Amino acid sequence: MATRDIPNVDGDGAANLPGFQVELARDEPMRLDSGETIGPFTMAYTTSGTLNADKSNAILICHALTGDQYVVESHPLTGKPGWWESMVGPGRPIDTDRFFIICVNVLGGCMGSTGPRDINSETGEPWGLDFPVITIGDMVRAQALLLDHLGIDQLFSAVGGSMGAMQVLEWAAKYPERVFSVVPIAGAARHSAQNIAFHEVGRQAIMADPDWRKGNYLKEGANPKGGLSVARMAAHITYLSETALHRKFGRKLQARDAVSFGFDADFQVESYLRHQGSTFVERFDANSYLYITRAMDYFDLAAEHDGILAGAFEATNVRFCIISFTSDWLFPTEESRDVVRALNAVAANVSFVEIETDKGHDAFLLDEPEFYQTVSGFIEGVAEHRGVGVKPEQSAK
Amino acid sequence: MATRDIPNVDGDGAANLPGFQVELARDEPMRLDSGETIGPFTMAYTTSGTLNADKSNAILICHALTGDQYVVESHPLTGKPGWWESMVGPGRPIDTDRFFIICVNVLGGCMGSTGPRDINSETGEPWGLDFPVITIGDMVRAQALLLDHLGIDQLFSAVGGSMGAMQVLEWAAKYPERVFSVVPIAGAARHSAQNIAFHEVGRQAIMADPDWRKGNYLKEGANPKGGLSVARMAAHITYLSETALHRKFGRKLQARDAVSFGFDADFQVESYLRHQGSTFVERFDANSYLYITRAMDYFDLAAEHDGILAGAFEATNVRFCIISFTSDWLFPTEESRDVVRALNAVAANVSFVEIETDKGHDAFLLDEPEFYQTVSGFIEGVAEHRGVGVKPEQSAK
Repeated sequence: MATRDIPNVDGDGAANLPGFQVELARDEPMRLDSGETIGPFTMAYTTSGTLNADKSNAILICHALTGDQYVVESHPLTGKPGWWESMVGPGRPIDTDRFFIICVNVLGGCMGSTGPRDINSETGEPWGLDFPVITIGDMVRAQALLLDHLGIDQLFSAVGGSMGAMQVLEWAAKYPERVFSVVPIAGAARHSAQNIAFHEVGRQAIMADPDWRKGNYLKEGANPKGGLSVARMAAHITYLSETALHRKFGRKLQARDAVSFGFDADFQVESYLRHQGSTFVERFDANSYLYITRAMDYFDLAAEHDGILAGAFEATNVRFCIISFTSDWLFPTEESRDVVRALNAVAANVSFVEIETDKGHDAFLLDEPEFYQTVSGFIEGVAEHRGVGVKPEQSAK
Repeated sequence: MATRDIPNVDGDGAANLPGFQVELARDEPMRLDSGETIGPFTMAYTTSGTLNADKSNAILICHALTGDQYVVESHPLTGKPGWWESMVGPGRPIDTDRFFIICVNVLGGCMGSTGPRDINSETGEPWGLDFPVITIGDMVRAQALLLDHLGIDQLFSAVGGSMGAMQVLEWAAKYPERVFSVVPIAGAARHSAQNIAFHEVGRQAIMADPDWRKGNYLKEGANPKGGLSVARMAAHITYLSETALHRKFGRKLQARDAVSFGFDADFQVESYLRHQGSTFVERFDANSYLYITRAMDYFDLAAEHDGILAGAFEATNVRFCIISFTSDWLFPTEESRDVVRALNAVAANVSFVEIETDKGHDAFLLDEPEFYQTVSGFIEGVAEHRGVGVKPEQSAK
């Protein structure tokens, strides 16, 4: 498939985005799960580390709902450090001295990969709701085209948390020959009713904002910041545990000695949430939020196999390391166990670790030593088995 | 204190409300926890059963955030049955054949008791955000004035779930001589950080709606239905358990065989939530929602006792029956246990029952046989002890 590197600018011309952009599906549009097609389209990605001669040391990092490709680089809009610098880097569990790390902004996203805020070449205007509804399968299909472009036949591993875990499981199910191993973290093989419900609240908050303009806000010079902010606030609560909220904030007041008997942010937790909402809208596109939450809602790996999840992994050779967190109530351990059971049913190579933490779903982004040890241990084991990316002192043995 | 019965019409003239309304604090305004005063003000209430000669068989039912005084009567706006007909009625655990039941719309509410949508007599316009911020303590203080009006010195019991439980605990803490017993159900002695956070999301959803008009929507002929609906949807998720959502909806589709690849309510759970939002706005006032959620956030019985909850119940003679539900994650059992521990520390008369159910916080409104048995058993015991409302066959023994 022919591809063409295109200039490194954001699709809407808003900001120069560090990293790479490549135009894919130029000769033939990519078929989507909806039956529609898309192409050519752009994928924006970053890399770190060095690809070895036989291109066998590539690790794909799959990002979560509001994540992006800036894993170890400062975010170009916020200036904040990369979102997984604790996990990825020289000497880290995902070691950039030994592996070649790729992270791709998902299809439908708003950090350089084609999404609803980009220009639809057929109309010359932003896609808005004319953008086709995409799925986790479509996101992964687009990533596979990127790997074709990079000449990588098989990933050493695909690793991701939350929606990233969904992509990683999709990789294992649909492209088992292209992933030697996968590490789905704090994920599930399907989105639960409660999670669909929370997503629907967020979407309704966006759509209730008159500045959403039925999705046409870009054409009409508006921005549904209020609705997007509320959506983020509601979602953010689900990323934390009650214990973490209690420890961090409890009923502590924000810069005051007594409650104000009003509707200001009296409590620190209110102030914190408002901050989460207001900073989020500076970096994220409301329609992308609709599309990506929808992709998660639609995710159900068992659906194509008469509801039998094991059917998605029949005769797989992929090595799985499945990780969950005890206090994660958005993607509770039970949902990871469902995946483990399905893998056991097909005698797959699977290790499963539930990490004890009170930090909730967000634990996969936070400092959790046992979590790092688990990822690190799994990757070392796979490296030895695959004979790729082995630590120098190990290969000297 | 002089009182005057006023015509039975809603404060805003919108609908004739069945039940009673009484104007209180006519001679002297009532002092609020904020330091402000209010009065005269109206309390709307319903009664059922018959008050005995010495006025010793009265049970006060305290309603939850979005509840009202229509416990066993059809709701005048929705036409739905009373919200606690399973618990209250002839032969029910709270037996109207033996007890006199009072239920009062809370101060700040929107079903006939004075609240932000009523006319401020000083300006001749709806209060809006000029309405003073009220607390659970203020709600109970107003209820105590109503009891004065009715000539009831001591309640046989005060019973309530959720915010109703907060009022019931407030009764026991502040007016121990006026409640012979209390039944706080699915409640807590203080609002948690997570619950404050969810309330703040709801308030921000309302305030982000341009039709909120900075609280002046009534004056300006608008109504922030979109924001209020989103607030309700977010809150509604917290009333259910994940298990209940999964059993009730799972990933079942709404009147279709396959997903639509769009933003319609594909899933039943989405359709259900949208319905919850859209029906709620027909019966509830957005500013009341702000005020009542704020009252819950401010609730912290230990705060006046240097953070020692037991201090709120020193030397109490009140009989407590504390009930929680295993799958309630909004007011988890642990918060009820905190109350029980505080009561144990002052050697109070307390029984505590955790009901096994997967229905979540809403279990207090649903059909739960063990729950009814618990309430029924407690009330029979107290009735025998107090010599009031004893069942005929029992008194014949």
